[in-house]
Amino acid sequence: MHTHTVKAFGTEAPDADLKQMNIDRREVTSKDVEIDILFCGVCHSDLHTARNEWHSTIYPNVPGHEIVGRITRTGNGVTKFKVGDLAAVGCMVDSCRECEYCKDGLEQYCEKGNIQTYNGADKHLGKQTFGGYSERIIVDEDFVLHVPENLDLAATAPLLCAGVTTWSPLKHWKVGPGQKVGIVGIGGLGHMGVKLAKALGAHVVVITTSPSKVADAKRLGADEVILSKDENHMKANAKTLHFILDCVSAQHDINAYLSLLKTNGTLALVGAPEQPLPVAAFSLIPGRKNFAGSTIGSIAETQEMLDFCGKHNITSDIELISIQQINEAYERLLKGDVKYRFVIDMASLKT
Amino acid sequence: MHTHTVKAFGTEAPDADLKQMNIDRREVTSKDVEIDILFCGVCHSDLHTARNEWHSTIYPNVPGHEIVGRITRTGNGVTKFKVGDLAAVGCMVDSCRECEYCKDGLEQYCEKGNIQTYNGADKHLGKQTFGGYSERIIVDEDFVLHVPENLDLAATAPLLCAGVTTWSPLKHWKVGPGQKVGIVGIGGLGHMGVKLAKALGAHVVVITTSPSKVADAKRLGADEVILSKDENHMKANAKTLHFILDCVSAQHDINAYLSLLKTNGTLALVGAPEQPLPVAAFSLIPGRKNFAGSTIGSIAETQEMLDFCGKHNITSDIELISIQQINEAYERLLKGDVKYRFVIDMASLKT
Repeated sequence: MHTHTVKAFGTEAPDADLKQMNIDRREVTSKDVEIDILFCGVCHSDLHTARNEWHSTIYPNVPGHEIVGRITRTGNGVTKFKVGDLAAVGCMVDSCRECEYCKDGLEQYCEKGNIQTYNGADKHLGKQTFGGYSERIIVDEDFVLHVPENLDLAATAPLLCAGVTTWSPLKHWKVGPGQKVGIVGIGGLGHMGVKLAKALGAHVVVITTSPSKVADAKRLGADEVILSKDENHMKANAKTLHFILDCVSAQHDINAYLSLLKTNGTLALVGAPEQPLPVAAFSLIPGRKNFAGSTIGSIAETQEMLDFCGKHNITSDIELISIQQINEAYERLLKGDVKYRFVIDMASLKT
Repeated sequence: MHTHTVKAFGTEAPDADLKQMNIDRREVTSKDVEIDILFCGVCHSDLHTARNEWHSTIYPNVPGHEIVGRITRTGNGVTKFKVGDLAAVGCMVDSCRECEYCKDGLEQYCEKGNIQTYNGADKHLGKQTFGGYSERIIVDEDFVLHVPENLDLAATAPLLCAGVTTWSPLKHWKVGPGQKVGIVGIGGLGHMGVKLAKALGAHVVVITTSPSKVADAKRLGADEVILSKDENHMKANAKTLHFILDCVSAQHDINAYLSLLKTNGTLALVGAPEQPLPVAAFSLIPGRKNFAGSTIGSIAETQEMLDFCGKHNITSDIELISIQQINEAYERLLKGDVKYRFVIDMASLKT
């Protein structure tokens, strides 16, 4: 297959800094669109993958799965996009399309594994996929999203992972008016969880270890804040929440959070602590509670979320950086020093 | 309030054997029925409570919450029963009736705590409730069940706890035709889980550590048996089950069982291991899986289950004992030496 070379920022080894490199992009086939990448969010998964922390990275690695840009070319068979349209790509660029989950519109749970935007198995070129830290990307239109024109484009990029990863469980577990919903962990994911749960009509309760985050949680839309280190405050709020979205990737005491759930409530984990979390049988049994997990979201959910964000004027709180600042941004990410998402202005790669 | 004395079998201390004693039963008030107890099942909770293993036993303690018998008296306001009717009582004899859960017909999750059949807070006499190891019991008709006439009465007793405790989660998580359902742990609860899931139309897969249980699992109705210690067998069955009912009270590796669930599947725990169970985030997140708990069942569910068992001629596999054998039965229970439930012939107390 014919390819063309584009500039990208990536890494050659787990312990190497990211640097400018050239990668090959495939030609635009019948159902493909070419997107000129304008902004790309920086997800913690980018760092995990660049540094091979999940032990599956193929090098070179070009991260980035919170991509927004404009369509610059379309294949003959493309029906959903035209040149000049805004467009976005999230964590997946394809899936098997044949399994029960793909047929149900749950590509994120594809039986064969969806094809991730970076470090995935590229069907076309037979090597690893390269992500959004690059000038352009070619993607099948079925995995490309429309972006509402009214949103700030840089601040929209994180919706493609952080947004839909919180949206999908909020929708799956039917969060809405009349419900008290807890959000644990106010970072890239959690701050989107607060905004989305609030806009869905829920009474939002942020649960945090940090008194320093109370004011910001309220600014983001929280109706209440529970300090999880205050045992009395936790006890006073026992059995009050219909649903909890747990965005914490560090080890934490799940039983303490489960105690906040009402009967029939669900705590859905979207952060992924490294070590197993001990769960007491009596945290679940007496209130028929659920401890669940959820990952990203389907293409349909991603579009639904973008449309919802357009309507409610919701974007991420971001810090805009140049691609040349990416290594420094990774170090700050490790310290939690970002409110709440770095986004790369991809113009910095082109000049 | 006027009381009358009845013979019972109970214990005065955690380390004392059960022995014959007299207890007071209240007079039959307007909504009460008096039941002449014919059979009472022996639940592991009886033993836990008799020996104060849950640290909340008030002595003397008279266990027994799998009660079947015949109505001998009815209060003026009783509308559902008449003298001579078969009747049954399970784990609860009352609840607050005012909280959101009671109003929703979920008395087992009563906000103030349902009133347990034994070692509960007796509203009428102001002391602990006494259970079914006794000649007679007086219960508000709202917490008394009708028993299908076609069932073997002794083998029906365990349905009141073991039956409904497995029925409730099977119904709550909508187990039925077209589903593969795993049952972990073939004992008092698990053997009922197999029978009920099979009668509900599911393809039943028993998961057991014991090759010795394979034949019996199939006799009970299992379509397949997975040996959980056989790693290859477990791997071959990864992501195949829609639902798992986990009836194991000993420590066990929940992650191994979660790996058997399909995407969106639920593992519901009804056994209660003493120590917390470590759950890996990646056991839940990639397949949006649920680790849940469930306890007993509502009064409506208990009646529904009894009617279903009447229709499908389902009872428990039991070993009938006299009340004088109860201490020996407890020792055998601790060794798992019963297929699958002891039931006391209460005639042995009366003579």
